[in-house]
Amino acid sequence: MQNQSQQQAYDRGTTIFSPDGRLYQVEYAREAVKRGTGSVGVRTPDGVVIAANRSVRSPLMEQSSVEKIHQVDDHVGIASAGHVADARKLVDVARRRAQTEQLRYGETISVETLTRSVTDHIQEYTQTGGARPFGVALLVAGVEHGEPRLFETDPSGTDYEWQAVAIGGGREDSQAYLEENYSQEIDLDGGIELALGALAATSEDDLTADDVEVATVPVDTETYEAVPRDDLEGILDEVSFDE
Amino acid sequence: MQNQSQQQAYDRGTTIFSPDGRLYQVEYAREAVKRGTGSVGVRTPDGVVIAANRSVRSPLMEQSSVEKIHQVDDHVGIASAGHVADARKLVDVARRRAQTEQLRYGETISVETLTRSVTDHIQEYTQTGGARPFGVALLVAGVEHGEPRLFETDPSGTDYEWQAVAIGGGREDSQAYLEENYSQEIDLDGGIELALGALAATSEDDLTADDVEVATVPVDTETYEAVPRDDLEGILDEVSFDE
Amino acid sequence: MQNQSQQQAYDRGTTIFSPDGRLYQVEYAREAVKRGTGSVGVRTPDGVVIAANRSVRSPLMEQSSVEKIHQVDDHVGIASAGHVADARKLVDVARRRAQTEQLRYGETISVETLTRSVTDHIQEYTQTGGARPFGVALLVAGVEHGEPRLFETDPSGTDYEWQAVAIGGGREDSQAYLEENYSQEIDLDGGIELALGALAATSEDDLTADDVEVATVPVDTETYEAVPRDDLEGILDEVSFDE
Amino acid sequence: MQNQSQQQAYDRGTTIFSPDGRLYQVEYAREAVKRGTGSVGVRTPDGVVIAANRSVRSPLMEQSSVEKIHQVDDHVGIASAGHVADARKLVDVARRRAQTEQLRYGETISVETLTRSVTDHIQEYTQTGGARPFGVALLVAGVEHGEPRLFETDPSGTDYEWQAVAIGGGREDSQAYLEENYSQEIDLDGGIELALGALAATSEDDLTADDVEVATVPVDTETYEAVPRDDLEGILDEVSFDE
Amino acid sequence: MQNQSQQQAYDRGTTIFSPDGRLYQVEYAREAVKRGTGSVGVRTPDGVVIAANRSVRSPLMEQSSVEKIHQVDDHVGIASAGHVADARKLVDVARRRAQTEQLRYGETISVETLTRSVTDHIQEYTQTGGARPFGVALLVAGVEHGEPRLFETDPSGTDYEWQAVAIGGGREDSQAYLEENYSQEIDLDGGIELALGALAATSEDDLTADDVEVATVPVDTETYEAVPRDDLEGILDEVSFDE
Amino acid sequence: MQNQSQQQAYDRGTTIFSPDGRLYQVEYAREAVKRGTGSVGVRTPDGVVIAANRSVRSPLMEQSSVEKIHQVDDHVGIASAGHVADARKLVDVARRRAQTEQLRYGETISVETLTRSVTDHIQEYTQTGGARPFGVALLVAGVEHGEPRLFETDPSGTDYEWQAVAIGGGREDSQAYLEENYSQEIDLDGGIELALGALAATSEDDLTADDVEVATVPVDTETYEAVPRDDLEGILDEVSFDE
Amino acid sequence: MQNQSQQQAYDRGTTIFSPDGRLYQVEYAREAVKRGTGSVGVRTPDGVVIAANRSVRSPLMEQSSVEKIHQVDDHVGIASAGHVADARKLVDVARRRAQTEQLRYGETISVETLTRSVTDHIQEYTQTGGARPFGVALLVAGVEHGEPRLFETDPSGTDYEWQAVAIGGGREDSQAYLEENYSQEIDLDGGIELALGALAATSEDDLTADDVEVATVPVDTETYEAVPRDDLEGILDEVSFDE
Repeated sequence: MQNQSQQQAYDRGTTIFSPDGRLYQVEYAREAVKRGTGSVGVRTPDGVVIAANRSVRSPLMEQSSVEKIHQVDDHVGIASAGHVADARKLVDVARRRAQTEQLRYGETISVETLTRSVTDHIQEYTQTGGARPFGVALLVAGVEHGEPRLFETDPSGTDYEWQAVAIGGGREDSQAYLEENYSQEIDLDGGIELALGALAATSEDDLTADDVEVATVPVDTETYEAVPRDDLEGILDEVSFDE
Repeated sequence: MQNQSQQQAYDRGTTIFSPDGRLYQVEYAREAVKRGTGSVGVRTPDGVVIAANRSVRSPLMEQSSVEKIHQVDDHVGIASAGHVADARKLVDVARRRAQTEQLRYGETISVETLTRSVTDHIQEYTQTGGARPFGVALLVAGVEHGEPRLFETDPSGTDYEWQAVAIGGGREDSQAYLEENYSQEIDLDGGIELALGALAATSEDDLTADDVEVATVPVDTETYEAVPRDDLEGILDEVSFDE
Repeated sequence: MQNQSQQQAYDRGTTIFSPDGRLYQVEYAREAVKRGTGSVGVRTPDGVVIAANRSVRSPLMEQSSVEKIHQVDDHVGIASAGHVADARKLVDVARRRAQTEQLRYGETISVETLTRSVTDHIQEYTQTGGARPFGVALLVAGVEHGEPRLFETDPSGTDYEWQAVAIGGGREDSQAYLEENYSQEIDLDGGIELALGALAATSEDDLTADDVEVATVPVDTETYEAVPRDDLEGILDEVSFDE
Repeated sequence: MQNQSQQQAYDRGTTIFSPDGRLYQVEYAREAVKRGTGSVGVRTPDGVVIAANRSVRSPLMEQSSVEKIHQVDDHVGIASAGHVADARKLVDVARRRAQTEQLRYGETISVETLTRSVTDHIQEYTQTGGARPFGVALLVAGVEHGEPRLFETDPSGTDYEWQAVAIGGGREDSQAYLEENYSQEIDLDGGIELALGALAATSEDDLTADDVEVATVPVDTETYEAVPRDDLEGILDEVSFDE
Repeated sequence: MQNQSQQQAYDRGTTIFSPDGRLYQVEYAREAVKRGTGSVGVRTPDGVVIAANRSVRSPLMEQSSVEKIHQVDDHVGIASAGHVADARKLVDVARRRAQTEQLRYGETISVETLTRSVTDHIQEYTQTGGARPFGVALLVAGVEHGEPRLFETDPSGTDYEWQAVAIGGGREDSQAYLEENYSQEIDLDGGIELALGALAATSEDDLTADDVEVATVPVDTETYEAVPRDDLEGILDEVSFDE
Repeated sequence: MQNQSQQQAYDRGTTIFSPDGRLYQVEYAREAVKRGTGSVGVRTPDGVVIAANRSVRSPLMEQSSVEKIHQVDDHVGIASAGHVADARKLVDVARRRAQTEQLRYGETISVETLTRSVTDHIQEYTQTGGARPFGVALLVAGVEHGEPRLFETDPSGTDYEWQAVAIGGGREDSQAYLEENYSQEIDLDGGIELALGALAATSEDDLTADDVEVATVPVDTETYEAVPRDDLEGILDEVSFDE
Repeated sequence: MQNQSQQQAYDRGTTIFSPDGRLYQVEYAREAVKRGTGSVGVRTPDGVVIAANRSVRSPLMEQSSVEKIHQVDDHVGIASAGHVADARKLVDVARRRAQTEQLRYGETISVETLTRSVTDHIQEYTQTGGARPFGVALLVAGVEHGEPRLFETDPSGTDYEWQAVAIGGGREDSQAYLEENYSQEIDLDGGIELALGALAATSEDDLTADDVEVATVPVDTETYEAVPRDDLEGILDEVSFDE
């Protein structure tokens, strides 16, 4: 364990390890992720759900423009937490990779391969000088050959597969909520409710349909679908989250 | 929260995060935006309005040369606040992108796609070393398929869509004015008046036609139009802004 | 506002903003402009005038070699203030740009387009590392389609259009003289007298024909003309400047 | 031997030796290896075994996604310890090298040649500036022409061949266990038990099938095989490790 | 005006201005010029003269190898003061430029154009990082279309035209001698005597033919001629310089 | 002679000399050589011998994988001391150079030419920035046209030819042993014994066949031969080294 | 004149001048030259002689491998003093240049042109960043069109022509010996004796044939010849140097 002055000797770039083998810039990028509002992913037998909290600075801002959930391919969506412009950059990387796969091999890219292409890109920014790491975590959610998949990427370029996971601000509370309430038998609607509940767990105010963005990739269609605002209102009305 | 000496350890370039996950150079670039005179955008059902305050250093300077509003394509205009030469650079990026779209696909570029091409360019200057961020914010305003759009870009490379928004010096006062006076039912002329009122809200002196530059993209023509000086005088005569 | 030690933390290159959003190296380049002798531009209905003070180190030096006024195209001239070699570099940029326009499009370049090509070049030296800003300000003067134009460029890469303007050493005095004495009705000879008066306003000694270099682009010929030494003597004899 | 302040003078990059001829960044990268959970390799006459401990952050995380063992070619697998994303990068290097060999020469690559291609890649990151060393150690295990091979790579780019070896967290305990229990006559199942025992030696808790990942390359098939979870349970049930 | 410690903050390279707009590295390069022995140029109606003092370290050194005067083209010569190897580099630049002009346009290059090509090269080394300025000043002397020309270049990349000029060590004394004794009516031999007198003015010892190198470009031949040692002896015998 | 603080001012890279003309990084690389176990070369009329001490970390490590002696061409071998991965890199350089010679000229490369190609490569890493010197010394041994040759390379890129030489840890003791016991009349077996004796001279323990690696290039075959373990045992049994 | 702390501010690279116009790294490279053993060159009417002292570290080292004299072309040899690997690099530059001249123009390169190609190469390493100067001085000796030539190059990239000159360690003593004993009438053997005497002047011990390396380029053959060891012994026997 190092004190602050020692830490400062090794935290100015991605090209140096600290004496105890840490990459401080990658750890600081994880702090940038925590500064963003949270996102949540839930995998159910019927499909995957991604949901994101979106903060709006002013009543005149279009909530839809605080875009934290992006369709990447017919069967894959990505939710982000952290530095917004960095997220968009990685989403572009993923989209191009999905298109290339389609063009070259005439096949839909697997969710895992797609995730790896993104984490490979992230890793390069943690080893070579002249740039900073990506200050963003992603949830990559999709269905392939009838199987729902849900991956998380972090700023070190590592990926993990989850049944249900939270990233960004309030991660601890949301993840605790997921661990307490997750069941492998819930259906897709149950998944949406669970995701919204996890997001709600990080805030004292009630969650409204304006505050969230949700998308699913159901197993039967294998097709990305944004959940309409009205549906969200319906769900939020029905459910009351105990915190 | 860091003290000044700690902050100075992490604020010399875009390639390092601070221990709490911030990019100081991007935040300093936002200060450069605040140093510029303000610009305002208003979206109405009949079209979008962009308006800018222009400061003139001397009676012998041509006011028209303090150019803060630029036509980018037939149907899109950009207003800026901050570092003037940086703004011109980004406007060139936008113009080239619009022309490329026209040449390659024979289609008019969408306002959102155009905005994204600009924020992608901005983002790169916040992640790779050897350069500084752009010290400018933009309002990208246009109409596509009959729908008026109004986007803001900031120095981090993030974009937001607005009904009405102010950038640059006096942003707080102007934005407060907009939030108080904006209505979704105003027509284009009402939009111009609202924009001028928001600009006036940042100054103690009365606003004259010499002090402002205004352009619109009406829904019916989908064509960028600079508002003539005479029209501005007429509007300013009719309206008296209570501050 | 920062104290000196804080300023020194952010003034070693063009790739960093100070915490209050300033680019110190660009501001220091403006100081290099002030170290040069002054130049003045005057726009009249009959054409534009540019005039420059030239300092000569020794009676054996050829005054004509202290070149501060350059013909750039048939219809455009440039006067400079600041770092002499930097000025020559930008004049070359302008000349090449004018030739390219002629070769590619068979058209004479507009004064504004020409100015922008120069300020684009200047801007790049204020954003990318590995170089310093240009330590020079220029006056770009010309006539196009019968209309006289007069632009100033500064080390940030911004341009302004003027009726009459002074750059370089003694700018404040010269500009004050111009504001006091400029009238939109003066003819070209009046413009020359006004320019010489503005230059004279910065010095206690009388101005002689050896001390100045003057060129015009009259509206009727749209052709750059250096004002001959004899003509300058005649004008200086006739006029006595009260300071 | 140097004190800490002297050490800090030479530990900021791979391009400088310390006065006593050490490369501190490479030594720090070895610390990154120790921060990872351990992996173990065992060579038996019947084939090679690689086994890895995998830590799981949450019950909702898919254990299979904490991938520390990778198939590289039909006859070769790699286990890693240390920085996960760095490991994936090197595994990609190895895979591409194996494919190239197959495509160019129509031959299966030898385990030693494959290992060398990886250590060559690692070495370059220890000599040239602009990057950091790889914070990962690998075990490269395979069979060629009926002969089982087991190599270790370290962050300096050195490789060693072993009969049985442990890398990563708890290396000392695991290696001591191997030295005490290894025999050249054990069969493949014995090798798996030995590897699991070495992993168990580093922890106070009992090892479950969830905590480990094991693969073998048997001599008779010369083909990489992941050991199924059920088999692991069976083995773990049979064996009780005395620590 | 800055004190030494402030100066040191801005004098480590060519890519930064000091707060008062100076380029210290260029000023230090001027000091390198002063460290060299002096050179003198004189323009007469009959042609131009360049003369240089050469210091010889040992009686065994060939004086002819201390080359400070170089033929660049049939009609142009260059004398230098300062860093010897830098001078040779710039002379090569000039020679290549002269040859290119001949090859491309079939024309002899003008002395002014040739000088500008050299100062353009010098300027680049004062603006871009990764190099130092040239520590040398040159006198470019030639005749074109019957007109003798004499230019000086300095380390900032500026050029000046002179009737008579001294560079390098002892410049002040030599230049004072020139200003006192120069007349526009002297013939070429008078020019040689004047140049030698200016060189002699910087030293207490008598000047011998061994100490100097002289070349001329007469108007009638427009051809560079090194003045033979015997001629120099004759001239030095005839003349006695009063200091 | 400099004190430590002064030394530290000039020892951070290969691109600076110290005030007394030293390259500290090259000297530190020599320390890296001393950190390695020793290697010895002996030239006899019948051929050349290279021998190396190899340290083994664990009884489970394959001694053969601690490779310090490499065949480079049919008639040339290289022994190394110092940074293992650096040695492998230089051996690759040598192998490629030998192959190129064969392919281009159809000739076997001379030992001296081969050595020079390696030292040229080493030198470049001592003059250009962005990398560190190679931390390794090599013995290049071979026979050409019936003549045995033995060269040493050091981290500065210098090569020396020897009759018998030691590099790496314990060099002083080994070299003293060689100087005391070398005779130009020994045969190849005598050369092997001498080399083993020199290696033994650096250690208190008896040398076993496991501790060493030996190769020869006999004059009659001009072919590299690794000395088998059994032969080594025989020789070690016969000989008892008095230390 | 600067004190040490001020000097240290300007001596870390070749891209900065000190305030008094010096390039410290070039001066430090001259110290590297002084650290080498001396070399001497003598020009006689019958040809040129180069001689070098070579230090041998051990009786087992081949003296011939301490190569300080190199043939560069049929008619040119180079002797060096200073950093050995740097010398070899420059000798390669010279050899390639000589070959290119032969191939392109079918002509033997002049000694002066060859020397300039080397000093041009040296100069580049004193102006551009990213490398250090060459720590070596050379004597380039040859005969062209019947005329013997002898040049010295120094680390600044300057060349001088000499009748007789010493470089490297002991230069002062050797040069003093040359100045005292040189005569323009000596023959080639006298030149060899003079050179050996100059080398002997720097040491208290008698010079043996083992300690020196001598080569000549006689005027009659215009062909480089190494002086055989036996001849050197004969000369050294005949001559006794009084010191």
